[in-house]
Formats: sequence, structure tokens, C-alpha cells
Amino acid sequence: ATRMTNVEVIPTGGHPAVYGEWLGAGPDRPTVLVYGHYDVQPVDPIALWQSPPFEPAIRGERLYARGATDDKGQLFLNMKALESIMAVEGRLPVNVKVIFEGEEESGSQNMDAFVRKYRDKLAADTVLISDMAFLGKDQPMIVYGLRGLAYMEVRVSGPSHDLHSGAFGGSVYNPAQWLAELIASMHDETGRITIPGFYDSVAPLSAAERAALAKVPYTQEMWQAETGMTHPWGELDYTLLERFSARPTCEVNGIWGGFQGEGSKTIIPAKAGAKISMRLVPNQNPAEIARLFTEYVMSCAPQHLTVEVSLLSDGWSCITPLDSVAIEAASQAYQAVWGVPPVFNRSGGSIPIAANFQKELGASIVLMGFGMPDEMIHAPNENFYLPNFYNGIDAVIHFYYNLAATH
Amino acid sequence: ATRMTNVEVIPTGGHPAVYGEWLGAGPDRPTVLVYGHYDVQPVDPIALWQSPPFEPAIRGERLYARGATDDKGQLFLNMKALESIMAVEGRLPVNVKVIFEGEEESGSQNMDAFVRKYRDKLAADTVLISDMAFLGKDQPMIVYGLRGLAYMEVRVSGPSHDLHSGAFGGSVYNPAQWLAELIASMHDETGRITIPGFYDSVAPLSAAERAALAKVPYTQEMWQAETGMTHPWGELDYTLLERFSARPTCEVNGIWGGFQGEGSKTIIPAKAGAKISMRLVPNQNPAEIARLFTEYVMSCAPQHLTVEVSLLSDGWSCITPLDSVAIEAASQAYQAVWGVPPVFNRSGGSIPIAANFQKELGASIVLMGFGMPDEMIHAPNENFYLPNFYNGIDAVIHFYYNLAATH
Repeated sequence: ATRMTNVEVIPTGGHPAVYGEWLGAGPDRPTVLVYGHYDVQPVDPIALWQSPPFEPAIRGERLYARGATDDKGQLFLNMKALESIMAVEGRLPVNVKVIFEGEEESGSQNMDAFVRKYRDKLAADTVLISDMAFLGKDQPMIVYGLRGLAYMEVRVSGPSHDLHSGAFGGSVYNPAQWLAELIASMHDETGRITIPGFYDSVAPLSAAERAALAKVPYTQEMWQAETGMTHPWGELDYTLLERFSARPTCEVNGIWGGFQGEGSKTIIPAKAGAKISMRLVPNQNPAEIARLFTEYVMSCAPQHLTVEVSLLSDGWSCITPLDSVAIEAASQAYQAVWGVPPVFNRSGGSIPIAANFQKELGASIVLMGFGMPDEMIHAPNENFYLPNFYNGIDAVIHFYYNLAATH
Repeated sequence: ATRMTNVEVIPTGGHPAVYGEWLGAGPDRPTVLVYGHYDVQPVDPIALWQSPPFEPAIRGERLYARGATDDKGQLFLNMKALESIMAVEGRLPVNVKVIFEGEEESGSQNMDAFVRKYRDKLAADTVLISDMAFLGKDQPMIVYGLRGLAYMEVRVSGPSHDLHSGAFGGSVYNPAQWLAELIASMHDETGRITIPGFYDSVAPLSAAERAALAKVPYTQEMWQAETGMTHPWGELDYTLLERFSARPTCEVNGIWGGFQGEGSKTIIPAKAGAKISMRLVPNQNPAEIARLFTEYVMSCAPQHLTVEVSLLSDGWSCITPLDSVAIEAASQAYQAVWGVPPVFNRSGGSIPIAANFQKELGASIVLMGFGMPDEMIHAPNENFYLPNFYNGIDAVIHFYYNLAATH
């Protein structure tokens, strides 16, 4: 009984999920569901990788590969923690289930239904997710909030074909120009999003919460180092940290249209498009935000052009109470391994399934991340800082024993 | 002496030019310089071609190939006209020089210097250019004006790498968003270009000229058929024809940035860029317009981002007096072949070298085009309406004899 049992690959509407369990602690002990994702972001631009993205390479204290930290590496350290306890003790101090999915990076579109369908199988008191980063080497962090997401695509077409810009320039509403005008209209000069109704359901940040976030030792210098930017941008009424963690956003993720090659092709493009995603905060409903976005875009669509809007992926935001037993167990685990208490922060990123677990299983969500902020997630040369891999195994082991001790 | 003599390939700073002459008419007869270009636009998007772009295919009354009408086909019919006269008469009625270049589609950047250097070799009374289109099957047209060009590229970079849009969204000035804001700011809601000083040197359209252009039998229905658009756009104070032939423009030819693939990659792009070109009218100086554009873009560049502007190609506009001997010879040639007088129009396109010939050689520029408006120039499935190929040979022959008769 020192192995996971009932291990299975479970079909979903897309990439399958992987499940396993060890329930030997008995029904009166707590149950932890470990969630991770084995899928990764696209690797392009491939030319910027220093080593092939799917051939892990260690340079210095880091392991380089797509998924090294997001999320294969952090998933794997959780497996190593369970393996370590079992190897030494022959049993775990709590019941453990693991569920790994393959569509997190594309919005976990099938996981809503999956979690509903397998609610009994996945039932747990606590969900442990390791898909986060520290603020720095010596400062572990517990993330108690995640932003939601509504990821949209806008496509606009006008002429039946690319037109000669000399022959027709000045008489045709250029699709790329209209798309630029649309995007430009989505923020005012203070960085505020102008889509009507966008902020209507946003839960205001309380003074207490703003005070807690102000204690996070995050500096503009750290932001500068991470981004390579010299000057912050965004809503002037909010701190830098609040802007990218606790406030909703609207970002262009990609834009295209017409001639992108070398030289000068003189056309009016027939089509243009953009990927635009919004990060959401409590209590914004992703479906409602997608509807408001679509309505706004269509209200801007001129009679000259054909405009289509589609929702590519979405997910709710998620908040976990700081006074929960599971958060306390995680906090003490970090303290034991790193020697300092963690800070409590909100993340600007999205783990769409976290909100689903909270809603469907009634579980506390504990985000014990072990990444570092400079690990180039979603970008070329993604890597994992290996000392955190080994310490992370240790911290997860502590977490299980801390949690068991509360019962 | 029934062949061109002194035929040579002449090096330029780029693609070479091809020259030949037949000066047997003697120094007291007029000399015509025939200009054409053997280079073509890029073929992408290649997937939309019904037959390979460099394997000419005849379907119905049309020949399909890149360059079929712009400008290889029209260049070739001029050769056939000269060959025909020589085959029958053994001599030409006027002196003829031909010069074919290979960089017209990329702005003829080396031809300024070339025409200056070879001013004596190229000396002519009249320059004949066939790189234009009719308004329709039964309506020949003489173009007496061409727009100039200033083709710019704007590149903007911000973050040192593509950033996770969850981790940093809301705090970074998104380069693609700024680029959209820049482009949106370049026109006001009436279609007028907002770049300061852009219109300062524009020669106003006279009432007489507007009256002449109003006689061109061009309809909105024709424009709709050619463009596939239902509604015209542009400066409300000008007719549709004036907007794309006699007014200066600013068009997005291409735009790019971030993720363009399938699905949802959640990044803030590190870079974005656009190709933006302006069509110019008398008396706008392309170098001055490029300077005004660059100054405007840099004045919009925020401290957050690094912005670069470059001029990719440029050329002056060109106007030929309607009462010149050469225009009259061309007009009668069209009348003889098609049975109707040509209309006199201005073209929205640019032939940068035409202005150079006018300036350096003191020659009258005659634009005898034989294309058709639906020949998909610069686009997939470019083609040439073959009846115009054969009639065009005939018309050029008439032109030479008409011109000889005026002396």
C-alpha cells in the first residue's frame, strides 16, 4: 500500500486527465487533492531558446525547458514529496488524491464539466496547487487570490482581397486602422478600461486588504528587473502590486494584419485580427465580461467592415480565506524550510480550475508555489531554480504533517 | 538596322537596369524613352493563388501570373509594338530608347542616381510608360497625374521579453496597445490625417481640375465591385475619385505583434510593429513628409517604450500638362483603336521614376496603360485581360506614328 492506487487516464472533451489516490489514512483523516497541469504554452519564438525547449538542460542552478516551472517541474516535486514519505514511512499522514490535467494553458475548457462529473471521486477537504512563484530567493509566499480570465479574439475583414494602397488608398476603411482605433478606445488616458459595465461587478479592495498587500515586500526595482521596463504603467489610483494582482485588466496578446515581411508591400489589408484578454477579479463573471466586451466591439463596428468576436477561454477568479486550517499548515511548512514566515499575496495569473474546485468540492484552495519570478514562464528559456525544487519537496512533506496534526 | 542597338545590362546600386536604343530616325526626329519595370510585388499569401504565380496560365480571356499586368505584360506589349513596326517597315518613325528597371515595387531607390548619371544616354522628348489600367473594357484612359509615396516602418519595444499577461498585466505599457493608439491618432473622425504639417504643402485642387475629374465615368458601383466594400470611407469634402487619386493618404499596410497562432497565449508582447505608407500629391516633398511623420511618431512615444521609425521607400508625385504634343498623340492612338476618346484621370498609384524623368530629362511623361481595374495587382491571382494586350500593341504603334506626324 505504499503506492498510489486506482491510477487511471480519464478522458475529457480534450486532453485527458490523470488520476491516482492513496486513501490509506482512513475516512476520519483529511483528504488533500493535489492538482497540476502537464500541458505547456507554445514555444514560439523558437529561435530565442538557448537550448531546445523539450530537451531539459541544466545551466548553473537552473533547469531549462518548456514547462520547467509552469507546471511540470512543480507537479513533479509534489510527486517526489509523496514518494519520499512513502519510502520512509510506508504510508501518508493524510489521504491524498492527485489530478493532473492537460488544458490549463488553453483555459481548462473541459474541466468545468469534468469536476462536476467526478465530484465524488475528487472530493477533498483541501486542494493543493503548486503553480506559483516566490517574490525572491529568501521570501516564500502564499497566494490567496487568483485573477479570472476572459480571452477574446477579434477578427475584422473589409475588402474582398488585399487592395493596392495606391489605387484605393483614401477611399476604404482600412481594417487594420479600425482595429487600432478599437484597441486604442479600450483604455482612457488614466489606464482605466472603457468597456461599458466592465467595473460594475468588481468587489472593491477593502482598506484592510490594501494594507495587507502593502506589506508584501515587492518593489518597483523588482518589477523593473522582471519586466525590463523602466517605468510602470496603469491605473494611477492603485499601487504597482495592486495593478497586476488585484485589479482587472485588458491586454492585447497579439495583433496581425497585412504585410509583415521585409520591405514595402503597398496594400490595404483585407483582414486584421487581435487576441485581447481580460484578467478578472472577484466578483466579475467571465461570461458576463465576455458579453460586455463583445457588445462593445460590435457597437464600434462600422458599416464598412465585418467584425467577429469569439471567446477563446475563460475562468473565474478565486479567493481563499487567510484563516483557514490549510493555509496555516502551508504557512508553517514554509517557515520550517525557509526559516521565515511567508507573505500573503494575490496573484495576477489565473488558474481557472481553482474556482471550480472551490465551488464544486467545497474545498480550501492552497496555492503553495515554488517558482521564481525570473523563470521566464510562457516565454523562451523557461527554467526552474533547482534549490526551490528540493526545498519544495521538503515543504510539501511538512505541509502534510502539519495538516494531519490539526485533526 | 531593324534591331535595337547598344543593348546592355547596366548595374545600379541594386537590381540592374536593361537598356537598348534605335536612333535611326535621326537627330531631327523626336525621341521616345520607353520605361517599364521587370520586378514584381511579393506573392504572399501564396495559398490563395489558383495557379503558381510564376507559371503563367491562361483561363478564359486572361493570363494569370505575378507581373502579368504590373508590369511585365505591359512592358512586353511595348516590345511587341516596336518589333511589329520593324518587321513591316524596317525602321521606326521616331527614335526609341528603352529602359527597364528592377526596383519599382520597392521604391526605385537607386533610380534617382541612375537617371542623373545616365541623363545623356536617356535623353528624350517623351517618356512612354505602360503601367496603368483602364476604367473598364470600352473606356481607354490617359493618366496625367501620379501620387508620390513615403513608406515608413514603426517598431516599438517595451519589455525585455514577452511577459506573462497574468503576472504583469495592468502594470506594463503594452507595445501593441501603444502602437494601436498611435495609428488611431493619425486620422480624425472625418478621415483627415492629423500629422502636424501634413497638408501644408499640398497644392489645392482647382475648380477646373475638379470639374475635369468629375467627367471621369467612375461610379461607386465600380468601386464596390473592385474593392468588395459596400461603403466608401474617407474625406467627406472630396469625391470618391478624388480621395484615391488626387488627395494624400496615410494607410496601414501591415501590423504585427505578439501571438498570432491558434488558441490563447497569454502574453504581453515585447515588441510590435507596423508598416504605414503615405500617398502624396503635388507639391508634397516625400523627404519632408517622412520627417513630419517621424517627428509625430516620436512625439507620441512614451517614456515606457523604445520607438524606431524608418523610411523604406519614397517618391515624388508627378503631373503632365494635358495640352502637350505627346498626350495628344496618345489620345488619338486610343481613339483609333478603341473608337472612343480616352478620359483624362489622375492615378492614386505611384511611379517614383516618372517624376525623376520629368525633372532630369525635361521630358513629357505619357502614361499609356492597358491594364484593367480587376486584374488583382499586388494580390493573389494577378492577371492581364488579353484583348488589351493585343489592342495595346496596336495603340502603341499608332502613338509612334502620331508623334512623328507632329514634326
